Amino acid sequence: MSSHTEQSAVTVLGLGPMGRSLAGAFLDAGLRTTVWNRTPGRDRELVARGAVSARSAEEAAASSRLTVVCVVNYDAVDAVLRRAAVTDALKGRTVVNLTADTPDRARDAAAWAAEHGIRYLDGAIMTPTTTIGTPAGVFIHSGPEDLYHEHRPVLEALGGTHTHLGEEIGRAAAYDIALLDIFWTAMTGYAHAVAVAQAEGVTARQLAPFAKGIGDILPPIFEGLAEEVDNGTFSGEGNPLSSAASSMAHIVHASEAHGIDAGVMRAAEGLARRAIDQGHGADGFMRIAELLGRR
Amino acid sequence: MSSHTEQSAVTVLGLGPMGRSLAGAFLDAGLRTTVWNRTPGRDRELVARGAVSARSAEEAAASSRLTVVCVVNYDAVDAVLRRAAVTDALKGRTVVNLTADTPDRARDAAAWAAEHGIRYLDGAIMTPTTTIGTPAGVFIHSGPEDLYHEHRPVLEALGGTHTHLGEEIGRAAAYDIALLDIFWTAMTGYAHAVAVAQAEGVTARQLAPFAKGIGDILPPIFEGLAEEVDNGTFSGEGNPLSSAASSMAHIVHASEAHGIDAGVMRAAEGLARRAIDQGHGADGFMRIAELLGRR
Repeated sequence: MSSHTEQSAVTVLGLGPMGRSLAGAFLDAGLRTTVWNRTPGRDRELVARGAVSARSAEEAAASSRLTVVCVVNYDAVDAVLRRAAVTDALKGRTVVNLTADTPDRARDAAAWAAEHGIRYLDGAIMTPTTTIGTPAGVFIHSGPEDLYHEHRPVLEALGGTHTHLGEEIGRAAAYDIALLDIFWTAMTGYAHAVAVAQAEGVTARQLAPFAKGIGDILPPIFEGLAEEVDNGTFSGEGNPLSSAASSMAHIVHASEAHGIDAGVMRAAEGLARRAIDQGHGADGFMRIAELLGRR
Repeated sequence: MSSHTEQSAVTVLGLGPMGRSLAGAFLDAGLRTTVWNRTPGRDRELVARGAVSARSAEEAAASSRLTVVCVVNYDAVDAVLRRAAVTDALKGRTVVNLTADTPDRARDAAAWAAEHGIRYLDGAIMTPTTTIGTPAGVFIHSGPEDLYHEHRPVLEALGGTHTHLGEEIGRAAAYDIALLDIFWTAMTGYAHAVAVAQAEGVTARQLAPFAKGIGDILPPIFEGLAEEVDNGTFSGEGNPLSSAASSMAHIVHASEAHGIDAGVMRAAEGLARRAIDQGHGADGFMRIAELLGRR
């Protein structure tokens, strides 16, 4: 690594909507920032704001001690980083990979980095592009703690909350996957609910204040049930699985009566029925988590 | 109808956890309340608090101008109400059916009531038993507006917010189904996320503050997207369906790599893929609602 080429504090590889937000936040924080994107032309606005445009990924990698990568998935990461010129340029430097993918891919990326003398942190961004550079951003990180602390000042230029979840490199991706699981399942439920409501002559806007009311009760329920799950107690007091399954059957019926695909709710009801068949009908709903996790 | 037998302000049929809460709230509000349950012995605590115990459903029905029914589903409602003695006792009186089921069943119950000269309102309770009698309760009602206003003072003794959604008798059940759809789909997502997190060595308690964070962003998203859906605009700016499908694929992969059933997310991803195949990959996620509702 040749320090005379390091004219920037940070390099951002990948200038999709999130990558551009990251680079913009670094620039706003007064950090000299080198940017590069596989498809050219995405860096125009950033360059106007003071970013250094690199002609190649290897030039970008060589220009900073810290390279932040944010592309569509790890296949795209590999396509950029796993070329000899880039790998050589990164040697002795740090990559913080904020691309979303699975824990396995994070572990694979870390193994590749170790093999090539590249220092590697994995992370995930839990909030939309609009939160980057604001206090609302939520970033999670995993990997060597000393490496995290070394680069923390630059990462914190992105604003928001940064949490180091542990040294196990797959940890951030594991949280990311679990949290996206909650998000996209809930979003699918909302889209389906809107379709059923519309078929009944109820507009999305009419449903919205009540949908918001349901959304409001979820966070405390999530928090309250976590302890129960960790303790392996699944109290169904007042709301047993059997009653959840009965609600689910009503939803499937009402949906299909309108010709609306109820595959998601059918799969959910199937899990509830499986737990009931195994004698857990009087348990609380989170028995499902235990059932899913059984080997 | 013989008014000399009407010694109570309200009758509650069905003394499961919710029925007992309803009767308790009426008693707390100082209303003389007659109670009955198919399985005897459930009224002991209520009688100790001043409730009148009826020996039969027909006696219970004859003792008040207003009968509130809250049982497990409409099969159970029918088993109680559709017997000649009970139907006769209810003639000229009002039934408010707070049992949860589908809009079809509500319409069927209203037709039966009309046929027998019984005045009928349908409703649903959107909050847990613990909210009954408190400001946190959420009740929705549908059916003849004048009938609703006539009985509103008694219904409001249950506390909370009461909303009359319209004269169409199935309306309350339609909202109920849609809102339960959101709730149970989201809960299934949470249970699944916890199972995946645990397989990755993350406890439910560790995940909880971040899960709460995801829960917190849902209500404003639900509200914000409603307008888009009603307008038929599905802007994917910053978060297109194709990117949601990519996240969903990661979740399925990470889940199945641990041997955890991903049927719910597979079904959700299937909807996203179907929309993408139809050329909507650049649209926003709520395109799914429009796709589901197509005939």
